Amino acid sequence: MPELRKCPVSERWVVLSTERSKRPTDFGGHKEEKDKDTSKCPLCAGHEGMTPPEVLAWRPANSAPNTAGWDVRVIPNKFPALISEGEVNRTGIGIYDMMSGVGAHEVMVETPDHFATMGDMEVSQIEKVLWAYKERITAIESDPRFRYVLVFKNYGKAGGASLNHPHSQLIATPITPRYVKMELQNSRKYFQEKERCLFCDLIRQELGVGDRLVYENEFFVAFTPFASRFPFETWIFPRQHHAQFQEAAEEERMQLAVCLKDVMLRLKNTLSDPPYNYVLHTTPNPVPRPGKPAYWGTLKLDFHWHIEIIPRLTSQAGFEWGSGLYINPMSPEQAAKFLREIM
Amino acid sequence: MPELRKCPVSERWVVLSTERSKRPTDFGGHKEEKDKDTSKCPLCAGHEGMTPPEVLAWRPANSAPNTAGWDVRVIPNKFPALISEGEVNRTGIGIYDMMSGVGAHEVMVETPDHFATMGDMEVSQIEKVLWAYKERITAIESDPRFRYVLVFKNYGKAGGASLNHPHSQLIATPITPRYVKMELQNSRKYFQEKERCLFCDLIRQELGVGDRLVYENEFFVAFTPFASRFPFETWIFPRQHHAQFQEAAEEERMQLAVCLKDVMLRLKNTLSDPPYNYVLHTTPNPVPRPGKPAYWGTLKLDFHWHIEIIPRLTSQAGFEWGSGLYINPMSPEQAAKFLREIM
Repeated sequence: MPELRKCPVSERWVVLSTERSKRPTDFGGHKEEKDKDTSKCPLCAGHEGMTPPEVLAWRPANSAPNTAGWDVRVIPNKFPALISEGEVNRTGIGIYDMMSGVGAHEVMVETPDHFATMGDMEVSQIEKVLWAYKERITAIESDPRFRYVLVFKNYGKAGGASLNHPHSQLIATPITPRYVKMELQNSRKYFQEKERCLFCDLIRQELGVGDRLVYENEFFVAFTPFASRFPFETWIFPRQHHAQFQEAAEEERMQLAVCLKDVMLRLKNTLSDPPYNYVLHTTPNPVPRPGKPAYWGTLKLDFHWHIEIIPRLTSQAGFEWGSGLYINPMSPEQAAKFLREIM
Repeated sequence: MPELRKCPVSERWVVLSTERSKRPTDFGGHKEEKDKDTSKCPLCAGHEGMTPPEVLAWRPANSAPNTAGWDVRVIPNKFPALISEGEVNRTGIGIYDMMSGVGAHEVMVETPDHFATMGDMEVSQIEKVLWAYKERITAIESDPRFRYVLVFKNYGKAGGASLNHPHSQLIATPITPRYVKMELQNSRKYFQEKERCLFCDLIRQELGVGDRLVYENEFFVAFTPFASRFPFETWIFPRQHHAQFQEAAEEERMQLAVCLKDVMLRLKNTLSDPPYNYVLHTTPNPVPRPGKPAYWGTLKLDFHWHIEIIPRLTSQAGFEWGSGLYINPMSPEQAAKFLREIM
């Protein structure tokens, strides 16, 4: 019998219709052609001249910027969705509202190795990628024009990646994105009512029940969410209450790297290297106040940062676009079982 | 310069980043392999035995159900996402809410002609399809277990269609889908404040400005929305205030068929027969009250039915999934101009 489940974080309902398909191989056939020739890849080491100048890199102290030798490199996107110059002007036209498209759009090159995947990288390399996320979020969040900094990764053609070379992206926007707002509104409401963090309660329940757990270590836990929108959707949370990713210490980032590598390897092995997206949800930026420190309000009580990983195995059609309701053919309990047993 | 625009209906912000691509041919290359052999198509005339028994058909009065001779035929989906038997049981598990997956899932076969497209069909044939929508919504909306009946169409593989034969679908759910709820909440708020329909104001503004208009006739208007999420997204509205599609008279359905055919032909010619989805947004079902007539409340004042057409030309990646913010590389004014000038 199909089931409707509601996500307490987003208040989204999901249709679990698990009669339709059941084994990881039912979602297979995602093997993609990988580049053989890397001579035109603008993200490879030695090709630094093909990109805008770097804004951050992990490289030997005596090496020059925009030369080879880096481990991780961050550059502005050559074709940005939003541009970084100018003020945020808000205007209206009759019934409509608009705003100038000011923002930041950066590319984080995760490794000089064109052929690496996150499941195969060294943990220390992944930690450097996470360090770059932290550095760039911290640098951008204090810009009073921006309300949010979203870090995300597209992997594989069906995941929307236009380049094969391992990379993540960051987009800063003058508004808080709708999904983050939804999560924040619900977790704030929950905190105001119960004086407990919604996410902490959710993590406690997942650790207690256990049938959706994928991985855990001292600091982090990965599980398939109760109301998974997609087959094998997986969320990673710090076990303790932390509102902001960018406040995590190096030791925590190292444990997150261990967790991320493990989960990525499980997904890769279970689903034959599937296309995927992940997104990092941290708090919105503090509200700027001219002449005073930025205002955090109750953000650090209400929110709990996390990473949402979405393998791109199913396509969204008219029903999903028209309703905002997802039909998921794979139960999260079944998906977690496959992911636990693969290794 | 990119622009952020806000949709007054959904309150979604959209990033218009029109530096990235500009001509309809930039989204081309969607030519799909069509079936040549129709012998295995379960929706073709003469194959009625390959489907569950029909629940509605437009056919000669003296013909037997589930035989050839129909113009339009409605059947239960053989692989339904929700099932029609049983009660709606609501339960909770700790922090989580769930509900039994009771619903209806039907397929409307739009024509016996396997190779027809909506742009090429006779207007009278399209009107019969719309008649079938009306009949089925009316039959299902009074079932007290269901809160909504969503009619939608998937066309082309990238549009999520698993069969080539022209067909629409209907899914009835025990909850009002999130997007419909968002639209209703915003239009209700607007009506309470202004005592005017949000959609009527929006239509008036679009007719006045004109640069997003695609088509209009006596009863209907088609335009690309101000905050289009997707290139060539097009909405169709009745010009006069009508909350419910299913209340439209035959003459209005005929005019809608003329409008739909025209818009579909424009999209087909401009974008080389693109994959697409459309959805019909009518009011949620009235609230059942045992022993009394169902309760409509202010639904018929607040809402204004419409059809949203989404050509599937761009793919959604990590940013969209993680933020709920869409990046659209084509301005609606430019898209409308292409659609106006094609014919």
